[in-house]
Amino acid sequence: MAQPQPLSSESLIEHLHWRYATKVFDATQAIPPATWDALEECLALTPSSYGLQPWKFLVIRDPALRAELRPHSWNQSQITDASHLVVLLSRRQITLEDVDRLITATASARELDPAQLEVYRGMIQRDLVEGPRSQAIGQWASNQVYIALGNLMTCAALLGVDTCPIEGFSPPDYDRILNLEGTPYHSSVVCALGYRSPEDKYSSLAKVRYPLSELIETR
Amino acid sequence: MAQPQPLSSESLIEHLHWRYATKVFDATQAIPPATWDALEECLALTPSSYGLQPWKFLVIRDPALRAELRPHSWNQSQITDASHLVVLLSRRQITLEDVDRLITATASARELDPAQLEVYRGMIQRDLVEGPRSQAIGQWASNQVYIALGNLMTCAALLGVDTCPIEGFSPPDYDRILNLEGTPYHSSVVCALGYRSPEDKYSSLAKVRYPLSELIETR
Repeated sequence: MAQPQPLSSESLIEHLHWRYATKVFDATQAIPPATWDALEECLALTPSSYGLQPWKFLVIRDPALRAELRPHSWNQSQITDASHLVVLLSRRQITLEDVDRLITATASARELDPAQLEVYRGMIQRDLVEGPRSQAIGQWASNQVYIALGNLMTCAALLGVDTCPIEGFSPPDYDRILNLEGTPYHSSVVCALGYRSPEDKYSSLAKVRYPLSELIETR
Repeated sequence: MAQPQPLSSESLIEHLHWRYATKVFDATQAIPPATWDALEECLALTPSSYGLQPWKFLVIRDPALRAELRPHSWNQSQITDASHLVVLLSRRQITLEDVDRLITATASARELDPAQLEVYRGMIQRDLVEGPRSQAIGQWASNQVYIALGNLMTCAALLGVDTCPIEGFSPPDYDRILNLEGTPYHSSVVCALGYRSPEDKYSSLAKVRYPLSELIETR
């Protein structure tokens, strides 16, 4: 496809500076449906290893369900007050069926015979299903989900939507409440999205970052 | 700070569609220094849990070092041919010193007495240094690094820079070659950045994504 007009560096960095982990959301402000649809598409377009997409995204809108999750989330107000709450799930295992699902989708999208993807299929199988990485597949899948989290927070900032990434929750309780026990997916991380309240004093605090000279080393 | 003008959803999604895991880079095209500086700043602005930034980013420019890494990277040409190669490192452990480093930086950036951050300090200590999460701190730190990877790939796409995320490498060999043994950091994931070669047939292939109905569930 033709390359879209790049953003200016200044504009991109301005958006990243504007972003912060929102502590207090304005509970009266909802993300408009068109913007939310775009954010769902951004999530789906997240890159993943082999393109395997070992994830699912639960969007929790129901206030009663939100209220039930909040005590298992260090009682953080973002859980109930943000416009949208996304629970990012990762796959517990990667099986041959998962690989075949990808091969089928790839063959279909690219108008190929699945047999033409046999080498690719074998490569994934030997790496993730049978290889050393299969021993730590939970971590591998969780890593992929965090790519989605990073992409989501940046995309939201670009669209003027506030976010708060949340690790302070109890995955076992979430899995129970969301009926994920016995399914191929479990809760990995949470992200609240919406609009900052004018009362959130954190929005005006200076961002804390170590100096580039400590973070980046060129060799 | 004042909110920057949001990007249009269409433009954002166009950039995400343009991005793909670049297999063949144009070895003659270098990322201009101003663009690279912006990408380093984007990396530094990545959000992390508690703002702990449990990472470091090695930018490998030296062709000899790249050549040495390539055989430990499934011999992928991106390692030597991309304009910039970033090895994303994560911390092996989170210690009280790491927490104090953050507290000191926060106090300094926000003109506070570190004593005012004692509750925050204790919270991080009980969670990451002494709590259950400390048992899987390697995974926690790696997860954070993948937020940086997700942010980096999206930011690069917005600036018109191609990327290829690379998990197909040998972390122990990278750690040895990059002299990371015995340091607080180890290799987590790699990202090559530069410009796609016109010969990369992958750039024109249809993107493979499962339908939104399979990826996203609203409750």
